[in-house]
Amino acid sequence: MTLQLYYWPGLPGRGEFVRLALEQAGAPYVDLVRDTPKGMAALMEIMEDEGATPPFAPPFLKDGKHIIGQTAAILLHLGDTLNLTPRDPFKRIWVHQMQLTIVDAVAEVHNVHHPIAVSAYYEDQKPEARRAAKAFRDERIPKFLGWFERILGNDERGGKWLAGRSVSYADLSLFHLVEGLRYAFPKAMKRHQPELPRVMALADAVRDLPNIAAYLKSPRRLAFNEDGIFRHYPELDG
Amino acid sequence: MTLQLYYWPGLPGRGEFVRLALEQAGAPYVDLVRDTPKGMAALMEIMEDEGATPPFAPPFLKDGKHIIGQTAAILLHLGDTLNLTPRDPFKRIWVHQMQLTIVDAVAEVHNVHHPIAVSAYYEDQKPEARRAAKAFRDERIPKFLGWFERILGNDERGGKWLAGRSVSYADLSLFHLVEGLRYAFPKAMKRHQPELPRVMALADAVRDLPNIAAYLKSPRRLAFNEDGIFRHYPELDG
Repeated sequence: MTLQLYYWPGLPGRGEFVRLALEQAGAPYVDLVRDTPKGMAALMEIMEDEGATPPFAPPFLKDGKHIIGQTAAILLHLGDTLNLTPRDPFKRIWVHQMQLTIVDAVAEVHNVHHPIAVSAYYEDQKPEARRAAKAFRDERIPKFLGWFERILGNDERGGKWLAGRSVSYADLSLFHLVEGLRYAFPKAMKRHQPELPRVMALADAVRDLPNIAAYLKSPRRLAFNEDGIFRHYPELDG
Repeated sequence: MTLQLYYWPGLPGRGEFVRLALEQAGAPYVDLVRDTPKGMAALMEIMEDEGATPPFAPPFLKDGKHIIGQTAAILLHLGDTLNLTPRDPFKRIWVHQMQLTIVDAVAEVHNVHHPIAVSAYYEDQKPEARRAAKAFRDERIPKFLGWFERILGNDERGGKWLAGRSVSYADLSLFHLVEGLRYAFPKAMKRHQPELPRVMALADAVRDLPNIAAYLKSPRRLAFNEDGIFRHYPELDG
């Protein structure tokens, strides 16, 4: 059955973590708002009218009659149905734990340019964003990516991916986190990268997966921009 | 087997969402840092030395030889093993989706008193916190709790709890979110409560569960305080 992804158009955003999983698995899906003329109306209708299990916010996925919201919950579901997570229950929850840490990092990235209020313009919180950015660049990037570097440095996991032999949705998401951080904070990432050789190698390995490589060259891959989560404001880098 | 919960002492924090699940299920557990003299050393040792699956931050749970971090991942695991989530896969992921939305709300609550940097003192970001608090009180509290009110208003779920007939970890967490918001923002919550009768009734129903009622009266239940996530700074309420 064709899966339906619902997400805001024009930005990679949180929807991109879901797209990467769908693309790697070669799953049949429609990116509804981008691919169909009435997609936006359909998204709004579900947000307003969906009965018992309304999504809190996009992205959400429609799988048959079921609606699933929250990026990490969507990936938990797709991990099982598209073979992007181990079957062993503890390894499966380990992959989810890594994903939730990526979700936390993504929320902090957004907080850098919107420290005061998500509803206010960046222009109205620029001095605060500058202070938030410095702390994020100097403390949080090395903390988050350093944790993944440490995981990748442990050979007990039994393979080149985060959870061992097979690529998981957490690998795909870590790739996108790295790409996003490089876009938003090129100078800071250049400073941190020498301490993160394994994370960088993993990002390269994801980029080279045949399905991902094909996707990245396709028009389906949206460029990062300043409407999204990862925004390049030169005044926030350094 | 006795479960081991690892969390910072002296504050309810994110550990409390895990405690509530353990208490409701009557699970044998040790709150390691609080209950054992060398608990803090054990926590630090796992943070620094745990090999293949290190936790990013407390809380984390030790179940046999397995370590699980991230509040929502711990609850996903306990939901299955302690019968605090439905068995149907889509209902199970729906409960998780609600939990992840509570996790988002909790992160935003923390951001209110630390909008610039988690590593800086509240005293060094007070004017920013004041602005962040206003947006959180006026926009985010009604958005988050209003979503749960809408869910509870739909009778299709087939029972008094968020996911129907049986209490789930999301119900317990929603109770704690409401308690925390009432502690931190008593004036704002007084304004919003009339629009949230079902959420308030659910919080009352959780409070009255025999195991939870006994727990809340016990010394195991920590009071909210200004080291935690939910902090009552009068200047941030209104």
